[in-house]
Amino acid sequence: MEGRTWTKTGLLVALMFLVAKCEETGATKYDSPGSIINPAQSCKGLKKHNHSLKNGLYYIRDKEGNVFQTYCDMAVSGGGWTLVASIHENNMKGRCTAGDRWSSEQGVTGTHPHGDGFWENRATYGIPSSVTSDDYKNPAYYNMYASDIMIWHVPNDTPLHDIEHRALFKYFTNNGFLPTFGGNLANLYSHHYKIRNGIYKVNVDNGPAMPVVWAKGNTQLYLDLLGPNVRAEVDGGYVQFRAINHEGNAFALCSGVKIKPGKGHIEHECIGSTSSGHVTYFGDFSAMDWENNPGWAASTKLLESSVLIFYR
Amino acid sequence: MEGRTWTKTGLLVALMFLVAKCEETGATKYDSPGSIINPAQSCKGLKKHNHSLKNGLYYIRDKEGNVFQTYCDMAVSGGGWTLVASIHENNMKGRCTAGDRWSSEQGVTGTHPHGDGFWENRATYGIPSSVTSDDYKNPAYYNMYASDIMIWHVPNDTPLHDIEHRALFKYFTNNGFLPTFGGNLANLYSHHYKIRNGIYKVNVDNGPAMPVVWAKGNTQLYLDLLGPNVRAEVDGGYVQFRAINHEGNAFALCSGVKIKPGKGHIEHECIGSTSSGHVTYFGDFSAMDWENNPGWAASTKLLESSVLIFYR
Amino acid sequence: MEGRTWTKTGLLVALMFLVAKCEETGATKYDSPGSIINPAQSCKGLKKHNHSLKNGLYYIRDKEGNVFQTYCDMAVSGGGWTLVASIHENNMKGRCTAGDRWSSEQGVTGTHPHGDGFWENRATYGIPSSVTSDDYKNPAYYNMYASDIMIWHVPNDTPLHDIEHRALFKYFTNNGFLPTFGGNLANLYSHHYKIRNGIYKVNVDNGPAMPVVWAKGNTQLYLDLLGPNVRAEVDGGYVQFRAINHEGNAFALCSGVKIKPGKGHIEHECIGSTSSGHVTYFGDFSAMDWENNPGWAASTKLLESSVLIFYR
Repeated sequence: MEGRTWTKTGLLVALMFLVAKCEETGATKYDSPGSIINPAQSCKGLKKHNHSLKNGLYYIRDKEGNVFQTYCDMAVSGGGWTLVASIHENNMKGRCTAGDRWSSEQGVTGTHPHGDGFWENRATYGIPSSVTSDDYKNPAYYNMYASDIMIWHVPNDTPLHDIEHRALFKYFTNNGFLPTFGGNLANLYSHHYKIRNGIYKVNVDNGPAMPVVWAKGNTQLYLDLLGPNVRAEVDGGYVQFRAINHEGNAFALCSGVKIKPGKGHIEHECIGSTSSGHVTYFGDFSAMDWENNPGWAASTKLLESSVLIFYR
Repeated sequence: MEGRTWTKTGLLVALMFLVAKCEETGATKYDSPGSIINPAQSCKGLKKHNHSLKNGLYYIRDKEGNVFQTYCDMAVSGGGWTLVASIHENNMKGRCTAGDRWSSEQGVTGTHPHGDGFWENRATYGIPSSVTSDDYKNPAYYNMYASDIMIWHVPNDTPLHDIEHRALFKYFTNNGFLPTFGGNLANLYSHHYKIRNGIYKVNVDNGPAMPVVWAKGNTQLYLDLLGPNVRAEVDGGYVQFRAINHEGNAFALCSGVKIKPGKGHIEHECIGSTSSGHVTYFGDFSAMDWENNPGWAASTKLLESSVLIFYR
Repeated sequence: MEGRTWTKTGLLVALMFLVAKCEETGATKYDSPGSIINPAQSCKGLKKHNHSLKNGLYYIRDKEGNVFQTYCDMAVSGGGWTLVASIHENNMKGRCTAGDRWSSEQGVTGTHPHGDGFWENRATYGIPSSVTSDDYKNPAYYNMYASDIMIWHVPNDTPLHDIEHRALFKYFTNNGFLPTFGGNLANLYSHHYKIRNGIYKVNVDNGPAMPVVWAKGNTQLYLDLLGPNVRAEVDGGYVQFRAINHEGNAFALCSGVKIKPGKGHIEHECIGSTSSGHVTYFGDFSAMDWENNPGWAASTKLLESSVLIFYR
């Protein structure tokens, strides 16, 4: 015999190790967390598991079993932010025309006064790669249970790998308010602050406003992009949900600001409305460009940027 | 020597077993039937393979190679039903406006009288998670070869995991009629019973009606949700394809009922039509709400439920 | 002892082989190139790797990480063509109505004169299986870096597995022109030849024309499907990008032809325009059916075929 031979016991141990190795490897080359065969529950979960992950596309599997790619921000305030939606204004002068999914794609009529319901319902559209060129809404918008939201304003048609660097503003809540309203915006809007028209009282029926932390830009820089008349109506450094204008109509989101007591010209700073009133206040970005009136119109920087919404 | 050593032959057998084990495990942790890397041909195939599977989302790979998630009902009559489509009325008063994919999204005009053709063609839209909030049509609608159909009426905006329990009605054919018409609805409509307007004769050109078995609800409960005038026009307990109204226009689907001989006010019980006639009968849900006239209008329970179509 | 036993060294070699085998196999059953867990960068890469691959659906992962199925043509001129887009006219008489994504889905107005921007932007829609029944645009349209394009004209509503055989025309450039314009059509249109209206000079501002090689059909057969007046305006055997009509409006793509010097009735042979002018020249297929005037109208064979665009 040339050299030592193996005992049966020793060999069995080696073989068991090998079987275990086999099973462990399994699809090992492809099953990193956030991959298609090992999707994460959220970007937050991914980040917690691996602190070195970068911004980019990952696979998410929501509680219903929907599997989809979305963008994770892994940088702001520790990261772990899941992109769930984008409000993109494809035609600032369009009044609830095609592409106005966050208000109405079919105009506003007496028989369809409250819009298409996309802040509240379970419809989805778009892909993250198109997030600055088209509206976007994924199942996490209504299926994820989150604590806070983050908003970015990103110039339209920015490639996905550049949105991180080209965002004009990044700000987020950090008071954990979302569980109080059902853990996501779909629940907030459908169970607490519905988007309806003509049935609310200005000021009285405004939804909650939450303070934000600025990760890029600041309150003053943001206010500078609103018209001077608008600046007199708002306090900067907040996000407000479901604000009401003088006509009693609802606007889904005042991003970057909250409405001062007694004020109601909110169509020039809040978005997502089918408010018709006596004038044309409706559309995804409402009347933020108000007749190019320098007193009320927002800067084209804001008008030509998409509003991205993240959960954490 | 401590203990017995292995012979070359014995070891080779062990190694071959191990190689086989390796190859068998492959991506084993992730390759259960109906997973993304091991998609099924249909829910029927999945159910046959594993009787204990629950309702929910599975991956399907159709004969063209399209891979997508859809909802399988694994419960009704032995299960194995693949969700292929949903007709969702997003604006009952809209007359072929945005979201009316099962009739026309661009109105009905002299130059576009037959609608957008989605009962017949290969376009797809939506995801199963949105099935009660938006129209839905996946490639199985035209690529699967099936024997029977099942229909559910589910209240709008029901979360996917609840549709099983909150469906108002579930009924299915069990006579294996579909192969006679090409094995799916796309073939039935495009090769046998086209959806056209103004070229048919009322009664004479109606398509086939098939009896249904009720899995939830029954004929009387369903008829109770139609207007009394409508009840005089139909027999309950059927599905009928491509029925014709008095104006000679086609309606794609009369779900739950068939048209009695000599009757033609079918716009109040059948859906999917661009029939304009002298009145506004068109839209995904046609004129089921007919001017809120209690004689002809269906219950809001039906009007505010989506019609889900399954194949088996 | 019955037979020879193994030495420790020999066994270690065998075990190392086995571990390597384990790791190599990994998800081996499912990880062929172009599969969901091993997506390719392009059809060109797939073809280079494996010359025997057939036409059909493969998974692509673009440089941003988007993973999606698309159709590869592996046959024409060595194959390796990635399907990136389809222009499908769903209503030839519709003037920028729903489904006219390559022009405008919201009409053409003074405040929205240049259309929805889909030749230039990053929006996506459709799936390859629907490519002859609906518009299609995937992320490769703007994320792939390619040398040449290929165009197929395929009769509407052709099943995916038949498009290869039922295409009326197949032609491609082979001069490697695309890198000069950014490597894809999104860059060509957004950085070099924008689609705008009323600001260009007929003839003077026409974009580049590239000669094509016919893989199916030929110049004469193609010209035969255009009206005789149109034939006097063009040279066959080219593709031209961003041509200008007499009203100074842009048309995205003249497929199969280029415009002769001094000619400008291009609305009858070029597609993708919101040109309104004094007449209705707009829509995905512009005025190719011009009032059924036999002098200007194209054959229904062309009008009822989708224009598929591939990159290589």
